[in-house]
Amino acid sequence: MRPTTALAVDGTDTVVAPRPITRRELRPDDVAVRVDWCGVCHTDLHALRGREAGGPLLVPGHEATGTVLAVGAAVTEHAVGDVVAVGNIVDSCGECPSCLAGQQNWCTEFPTLTYGGVDRVDGTPTLGLWAGEVVIRESFVHPLPAGLDPAAAAPLLCAGATVWEPLRSAGVGPGSRVAVVGLGGLGHLAVKFAAALGAEVTVLSRSADKADDARALGATALVVSTDEAAMAAVADTFDLVVDTVAVPHDLGPLLRTVAVDGVLCSLGDLGPVTVQIMDLLVGRKKLTSSGSAGLPSTREMLAFCAEHGVTADVEVLPAARVQEALDRLAVGDVRHRFVLDTSALS
Amino acid sequence: MRPTTALAVDGTDTVVAPRPITRRELRPDDVAVRVDWCGVCHTDLHALRGREAGGPLLVPGHEATGTVLAVGAAVTEHAVGDVVAVGNIVDSCGECPSCLAGQQNWCTEFPTLTYGGVDRVDGTPTLGLWAGEVVIRESFVHPLPAGLDPAAAAPLLCAGATVWEPLRSAGVGPGSRVAVVGLGGLGHLAVKFAAALGAEVTVLSRSADKADDARALGATALVVSTDEAAMAAVADTFDLVVDTVAVPHDLGPLLRTVAVDGVLCSLGDLGPVTVQIMDLLVGRKKLTSSGSAGLPSTREMLAFCAEHGVTADVEVLPAARVQEALDRLAVGDVRHRFVLDTSALS
Repeated sequence: MRPTTALAVDGTDTVVAPRPITRRELRPDDVAVRVDWCGVCHTDLHALRGREAGGPLLVPGHEATGTVLAVGAAVTEHAVGDVVAVGNIVDSCGECPSCLAGQQNWCTEFPTLTYGGVDRVDGTPTLGLWAGEVVIRESFVHPLPAGLDPAAAAPLLCAGATVWEPLRSAGVGPGSRVAVVGLGGLGHLAVKFAAALGAEVTVLSRSADKADDARALGATALVVSTDEAAMAAVADTFDLVVDTVAVPHDLGPLLRTVAVDGVLCSLGDLGPVTVQIMDLLVGRKKLTSSGSAGLPSTREMLAFCAEHGVTADVEVLPAARVQEALDRLAVGDVRHRFVLDTSALS
Repeated sequence: MRPTTALAVDGTDTVVAPRPITRRELRPDDVAVRVDWCGVCHTDLHALRGREAGGPLLVPGHEATGTVLAVGAAVTEHAVGDVVAVGNIVDSCGECPSCLAGQQNWCTEFPTLTYGGVDRVDGTPTLGLWAGEVVIRESFVHPLPAGLDPAAAAPLLCAGATVWEPLRSAGVGPGSRVAVVGLGGLGHLAVKFAAALGAEVTVLSRSADKADDARALGATALVVSTDEAAMAAVADTFDLVVDTVAVPHDLGPLLRTVAVDGVLCSLGDLGPVTVQIMDLLVGRKKLTSSGSAGLPSTREMLAFCAEHGVTADVEVLPAARVQEALDRLAVGDVRHRFVLDTSALS
């Protein structure tokens, strides 16, 4: 087994702390990656808060960049020393229609999540990327294109991939009118991506004081979503509304900003959502959702980012300050994503 | 004023009966139409059941074919003796973006409904088409293409137009896989239209005994919607699911039959609907709705029906037997639409 250190909670721990863990010995198609940078996502916060005292070992972290340390005998794409990226899925069945279509995120056997999942081969629980190293099947390891700052690229692997798919599936490009709801980790990348794709981008936010921020990211305007007159002024306007708000909220005001034949895509796993059918009927508006991404679109997104010089706006903290990152993320005090420097863990 | 007879309820009436009514004198852009055939729609049943005792005069009927009796001085498209068709909208503002785009059904000032509306010029209540004649603005009167049986064409004006728009906006054609939920007035026309457009059509129904009927209409199969195994066998299958069920029901089982990037279109004004976001997320499925139709698509639908020889399957009853039609419609005892022969009213 390969020993390393992870930021973890175990047993009755209440705070994240460095703990020794082990990774599996390399299988023929495995890659060992030294984690260099890893993002801090709301999902991590939820996982930590949702963990029951006495529960199993939890290592968060699911958007990282790093360096290849070793490769299995059958690995062909990666070599020791390569800079690579790892996201929130580390395996899938590979045989279902979704996997065959490159949508491993919809695997009918459920994709193996980077943490909180179960390894498909040996049945052990998966442990995340707030760690010194990780061992992953090669096809779930992406080469990081040259030119991307590895620290600022780490959040692309979850936040970026998650917002890329709805933009691409909606065919966003020059002439598209896109609204992005929320300016957190996902939202700020949605603005950057949509702007880089050539769209006219509007941010819908509860906070007027984010207007300068929105423009700096590439938006042409910010509309305060609680201002009924301002929202009425953008009624029936947007071809695509990308809603990154992860807590239950009324989708009616957002649907009313969607243009004829346009789409509201909710990225939060909001559970049950209720909409008024008339908000869909008038204008033949569509409600959909998206979550995570398949491997091909993740690679396409990384290539696009390299070509257009897009990365996340990050605040880097050393791994030892993870609790500070979590506490500030919980109150939205970050522009726009914390990334942990995990070099002390390897 | 132009006197005629209508099937109506007034005051404390509890059953529909012939009553004398008047239509307005022709304005320059008006057409007087002798109603020859008019469908009996669930909307009519709801309007009659929902009417409060002592309420205003109600004349149902909103899908009819007839013959032009007289035209206003400025009318250019229609001439006395023309066979024409009238639907559920008789006016709209004509100036809002929806009207300018030919979607009068979404008029921001709300379209003037054929009954239960208010005339935009004189402020009088509109009275429907279960009547000897009607006076309507010429642009809301459609020439009935040659070759269509006027009795069987009457339901095209509401049921037909309503199912045509979602099929067309989804781009249904050869290779499309379409499911139609319900085989009533709307559903049976959706099956005929989708089949005539070249799609492979499946009916989803609670009743296995409608299988022969579904095949006769052009479907290749009927899946019993309460049979979980049968529904699982068509999971992720349909590019478009046209849901004609007009009472609240769980959309989850229907969403699970939608293919990747496909659409579930609900045609009932179900009010608030609740869906599980995961039923949208996995497969990037879309929920939308549609209701009524704009004038251009109504005419397109009529031309398509003439070209492909498609009309409704109707049971014709004389106007005097309207109550029988309503009673049997209430229990679903009709294949697939009642049409009243209104010749006795004119």
